[in-house]
Amino acid sequence: IPGPVEVSDEVLSAMSSPVVAHYGPEWTEIYDETLSLARRVFLTKSNDMFLIPGSGSAGLDAGLGSLVEGNRKVLVPINGWFGRRLRNIASTHSNDVHVVDFELGEPVDVGVIDDYLADRPDVEVLAATHCETSTGVENPVEELGKVCSRHDVLLIVDAVSSLGGSRVKTDEWGVDICVTASQKGLEAPPGLALVSVSPEAWDVIEGTPDPGWYLNLKVWKKFASDWASWHPFPVTMAVNNVLALKQSLTRILEEGLEERFQRHEEVTDFLRESLRNLGFTLFVGNDYRSTTVTSVEADSRFEVEELREYLEDEHSIKIAGGLGDLEGKLFRIGHMGPGASYDSILPLLFGMGKYLREVGE
Amino acid sequence: IPGPVEVSDEVLSAMSSPVVAHYGPEWTEIYDETLSLARRVFLTKSNDMFLIPGSGSAGLDAGLGSLVEGNRKVLVPINGWFGRRLRNIASTHSNDVHVVDFELGEPVDVGVIDDYLADRPDVEVLAATHCETSTGVENPVEELGKVCSRHDVLLIVDAVSSLGGSRVKTDEWGVDICVTASQKGLEAPPGLALVSVSPEAWDVIEGTPDPGWYLNLKVWKKFASDWASWHPFPVTMAVNNVLALKQSLTRILEEGLEERFQRHEEVTDFLRESLRNLGFTLFVGNDYRSTTVTSVEADSRFEVEELREYLEDEHSIKIAGGLGDLEGKLFRIGHMGPGASYDSILPLLFGMGKYLREVGE
Repeated sequence: IPGPVEVSDEVLSAMSSPVVAHYGPEWTEIYDETLSLARRVFLTKSNDMFLIPGSGSAGLDAGLGSLVEGNRKVLVPINGWFGRRLRNIASTHSNDVHVVDFELGEPVDVGVIDDYLADRPDVEVLAATHCETSTGVENPVEELGKVCSRHDVLLIVDAVSSLGGSRVKTDEWGVDICVTASQKGLEAPPGLALVSVSPEAWDVIEGTPDPGWYLNLKVWKKFASDWASWHPFPVTMAVNNVLALKQSLTRILEEGLEERFQRHEEVTDFLRESLRNLGFTLFVGNDYRSTTVTSVEADSRFEVEELREYLEDEHSIKIAGGLGDLEGKLFRIGHMGPGASYDSILPLLFGMGKYLREVGE
Repeated sequence: IPGPVEVSDEVLSAMSSPVVAHYGPEWTEIYDETLSLARRVFLTKSNDMFLIPGSGSAGLDAGLGSLVEGNRKVLVPINGWFGRRLRNIASTHSNDVHVVDFELGEPVDVGVIDDYLADRPDVEVLAATHCETSTGVENPVEELGKVCSRHDVLLIVDAVSSLGGSRVKTDEWGVDICVTASQKGLEAPPGLALVSVSPEAWDVIEGTPDPGWYLNLKVWKKFASDWASWHPFPVTMAVNNVLALKQSLTRILEEGLEERFQRHEEVTDFLRESLRNLGFTLFVGNDYRSTTVTSVEADSRFEVEELREYLEDEHSIKIAGGLGDLEGKLFRIGHMGPGASYDSILPLLFGMGKYLREVGE
């Protein structure tokens, strides 16, 4: 399934540490170390980093609300369920949300966005998904970053299902607000959103009305500064989740980011070729394939729901169906973190081969 | 310290369960059972219940924002740090926030609120803290509920540091939105807010503009209904935190709510008398004492910070200083959940007695 991913024993063990107080110098040191590790995985040197108890959508709401509350003009390219969610979140903060739709299974077309921004110089923010989990498309965020920079537009990216498994170069690509969650590429249990914020984003946020209190990055910045030495966040921190995340970030950096990305690419390409060998049609072309989730089209040989149940019942392997309009039309295989391994992919391919043989007989 | 509390081994063990998917019939059953257990601890039969990944303040922001966004008139009685936080949160959603201040260490005066609401029939919401953790006052929420009902005003209560350790009768007292968090009276690790919502609150929420997306109770209600059978919430649920909470709610109900409240009262009164025997002055009178946190005034015999460090270094016991204006003027002892026991209180009293003897020599 496309997350949450299996979590290692050492991370789970951190999750069940005795609950410690979320303040004082000892905890603040642990917290600050976790922020530093997160910055390294985000590939950002100096952007501010926040750990917000909540889901990935909480982080997106914090980033979007802090940027666009009070009807700032924002453009959202949509090519799937999670692009629509960005639009939905933005719409609760601004009545000036613009949308450009792209085909499901196709990437966001950078040229179209470039033209749109050229025509509308008053757009101030672009909100894009990196990996569109609902289709398995990885959108060209690096190119979007260049376009945004050219038009002086801030870029906020939903990297929930990519970061940690696929390259997200926050600084190099010019991602002003980058959001992910603990439970996918970062291989920790769910419960924390991670949000990085650039100096350029702060300039706009400081002039934006409050989008609420808890998901208001101004509030988080104020406590990070005012209470830096003993309680650098405004609320009770989810301490066990942070300890687990710290452990998983450490593991990720020990593996090495580049090694990790290559592992995901290698396993993805092996999986895709093997699926083609089994006669499946992939939903997304090679150029924009996600390296964390792969979508496969339904065809006349099988029913998606039947295949899903067969794999779960007979092989204890979980795949996911399509979301929304894509229900019944495709299935999705998650391969992030520990799932990006031959050990995890081969039993799946074996099970699918067996299923096809059985239904074909 | 006034939370987070020590968490039992069986709850911690649930916290480190292998991460399961946050959807499907199996998970939905676990989630729904947890909601039922929470309703029993909230003493509500039929109010809707939500588990929101986040801190207690996330729950308060969800409740307040969903009620008052778009400048609804709300009254906040303030007698401490957490009353001010309610005001701060409300102010990000409404420019019509009214405040009545009371002395620190004194309870909210119900008569004053009654008069205020009589003078201002356009106030629609009252937001009050139950236990004001910063002073150890328990505000008279039952009486506030009667006043609200008389004036046809909705009541939202911050029960973060009381619920589970002190009586909170959501239905009987007419608390329209009741908010707590996992890590205090509920004895689970931090990371989840619990929010109950009455039918009367829904009537107002449905007519209120969106206060954002993640902390928007309308969004949570929609998914609880539309996706009831497989994914009854809008986001990735913090599954391990929910499993731990389910375990701790079960333990609480096994002990028995009334037994539990009496245990907290008995230990509180023993602690208060013993502190008086040691010559300390209590900050709060007997009639409005919290049964989860006790505040003690500084006096000429000692420095708060010195006592705090002594107890931590010599006896591994944590107490907390005063917050904000009360820094240096008092210290606070938490006694909720496992802390509401003689086993936990006696070593503290012993350590304090020893400290006083040593500084007195």
